[in-house]
Amino acid sequence: MPDFSPELRKDPITGRWVIISSARAQRPEAPEPRREEESPEARARCPFCYGHEEMTPSEIFALPNNGRSINTSGWITRVVPNKFPAFGIYPEISLRRVGMYQMATGYGAHEVVIESPEHETYLEHNGLDQISRIVDTWWERNVDLERDPRLKYVLIFKNHGKAAGASLAHPHAQIIATTIIPDALKVKLINARSHFENGEGCIWCRQIEHLFYYENRIYNPDGSVLVEVRQRDRMVAENAKFIAYIPFAARMPYEIHILPKSHQYSFIQTTEEERGELAQMLKVVLSKLYVLLGNPPYNFYVHSAPNLNVRPRTGDYTTIREDFHWHIEILVRTTIWAGFEQGSGIYINPLNPNDAARYLLETAVE
Amino acid sequence: MPDFSPELRKDPITGRWVIISSARAQRPEAPEPRREEESPEARARCPFCYGHEEMTPSEIFALPNNGRSINTSGWITRVVPNKFPAFGIYPEISLRRVGMYQMATGYGAHEVVIESPEHETYLEHNGLDQISRIVDTWWERNVDLERDPRLKYVLIFKNHGKAAGASLAHPHAQIIATTIIPDALKVKLINARSHFENGEGCIWCRQIEHLFYYENRIYNPDGSVLVEVRQRDRMVAENAKFIAYIPFAARMPYEIHILPKSHQYSFIQTTEEERGELAQMLKVVLSKLYVLLGNPPYNFYVHSAPNLNVRPRTGDYTTIREDFHWHIEILVRTTIWAGFEQGSGIYINPLNPNDAARYLLETAVE
Repeated sequence: MPDFSPELRKDPITGRWVIISSARAQRPEAPEPRREEESPEARARCPFCYGHEEMTPSEIFALPNNGRSINTSGWITRVVPNKFPAFGIYPEISLRRVGMYQMATGYGAHEVVIESPEHETYLEHNGLDQISRIVDTWWERNVDLERDPRLKYVLIFKNHGKAAGASLAHPHAQIIATTIIPDALKVKLINARSHFENGEGCIWCRQIEHLFYYENRIYNPDGSVLVEVRQRDRMVAENAKFIAYIPFAARMPYEIHILPKSHQYSFIQTTEEERGELAQMLKVVLSKLYVLLGNPPYNFYVHSAPNLNVRPRTGDYTTIREDFHWHIEILVRTTIWAGFEQGSGIYINPLNPNDAARYLLETAVE
Repeated sequence: MPDFSPELRKDPITGRWVIISSARAQRPEAPEPRREEESPEARARCPFCYGHEEMTPSEIFALPNNGRSINTSGWITRVVPNKFPAFGIYPEISLRRVGMYQMATGYGAHEVVIESPEHETYLEHNGLDQISRIVDTWWERNVDLERDPRLKYVLIFKNHGKAAGASLAHPHAQIIATTIIPDALKVKLINARSHFENGEGCIWCRQIEHLFYYENRIYNPDGSVLVEVRQRDRMVAENAKFIAYIPFAARMPYEIHILPKSHQYSFIQTTEEERGELAQMLKVVLSKLYVLLGNPPYNFYVHSAPNLNVRPRTGDYTTIREDFHWHIEILVRTTIWAGFEQGSGIYINPLNPNDAARYLLETAVE
């Protein structure tokens, strides 16, 4: 009989506790892919389609990057400023204390990466060539934004589906660059540095090793198996340069992390060849989610070390290299982040990470 | 002309950065209250209605607490174990290291507080007497759970509406008690202690003072107003014992904090009279949200200091009293927590906290 006792797991990188409570979850029946409704008017007015280039703010970058007039059709990927930016580029950055409070002007960048002229597709349904160009486009913008030493952090992310926060259907990702290092990164930087300084090397490299080599079972007093920790079971996919797996303390069902197998501190270190492998990995992993869960809403983001062009300061964690390993985290919106998660910071994951990985491994895609 | 420059604000208690980006937000037109669809079958099978007491696990507590047989009708509030608990009560607690990972069995409690026999009502639409009994019921369970010194933290929370994670329509709150102090609390405990040890007193008491006394304006180089910080403007409601306001660095539109005006470290310290005032404050604040936003989905949770019956250890923050001020945080689900928020830990709030407070202040309720 399976053991449904809830179990607390601690993520070694973020220190975050997760409750793995698999009493409710069943293997999903592969459903018909959901297609989100869009009015014909919204479709006709899409600012990301060919011929509508004038509806967006003037473009920042496009591929191919020669032989084409700016803000006209003919591009295969296109980057424009967000029309409703969370940040703008202001002449001055000022940090101020107001009584007991601290504030700053919102200097930064907020860009949209249009993934192709195709309105009716998804990232994973593009050909491998097109996905490679999309990943190259992220890379071009990441490298360019890090030339500004005021921008300490560049975050590439994607919202897929309305329930995941996508306000336009035409496939796109976003890039936000900020003058502060986001909290979600600080926690990782601090814990990864401490792991490294304890002589244990890169904490992500170590997790990859565990995926391959570690197996264990924990027994109840009566001799029955309390929990089986066969780390390899959490692997979802692998290719020459990348590996995808469900983390030990996954926050939600089908949380997937994609990492380069060799140590790199930042996405900007990737070669064109590696980005081709990343494109292949994204295609496989997202296609598995599409098939298994029927086009679920999801978010993903790229976590690299902070901008190394920022002037280093003693004790600053902006210069970390050996102890940070860049990666992509995919979060599928199958559960709702409710009062308990908000009030505690603890996630309740109703699906055992080993089961999630097995279902994905067994899901065939082209 | 209003200034729509995005602005970064740092919350002094959590250290969390928020982007206040009010270019998009408009004052809402008071909409028709949404009523959520529920099938007649689900309605007929509601386990929280009179006559269905046998559908829940056996009750833990009920009001009135005498003159009634257990698990029968006639109660005005009723507390039962969650049928799908994130935690259960297990005989042993064990923390284990498995290779590089840490795990523990899920010891704890997970209870449901049924707010009244009325299926078709909302917390705020109950009479003041009933809301007082609901708050008393939270208090009874909180006090009782803290008798178990293994339970370091008791979290009372409520999910209202499907989009906020409520799976049953019948009004109820939940209580989860854990053997760990949740991360969301640790951050507050550490920062509040440091504020206190710096000789600046309770950081929440200080924020309440700021609401009343602090006014400031910040000017652009050309003399125009960059931002107006009139803290009193963030106040939403006040009564003899409680105050409700929008925090300086609100994470989302209409985030509201309710605090006792006099310093108390835990909800368990409240007197019956104070709980009556809290009931009145909840009724006013939630009714304002109901009217202004048309029955929005929301979550709230109570943050008290950890269980003081836990054996104190040196350097432990479980014994904090003078530096922690209990409070309720209400989060209205008007925005989606998307890739940027997940990847950065930074929230983008499209509504200036001063405006949010003004709209709520101006919303008349009985």
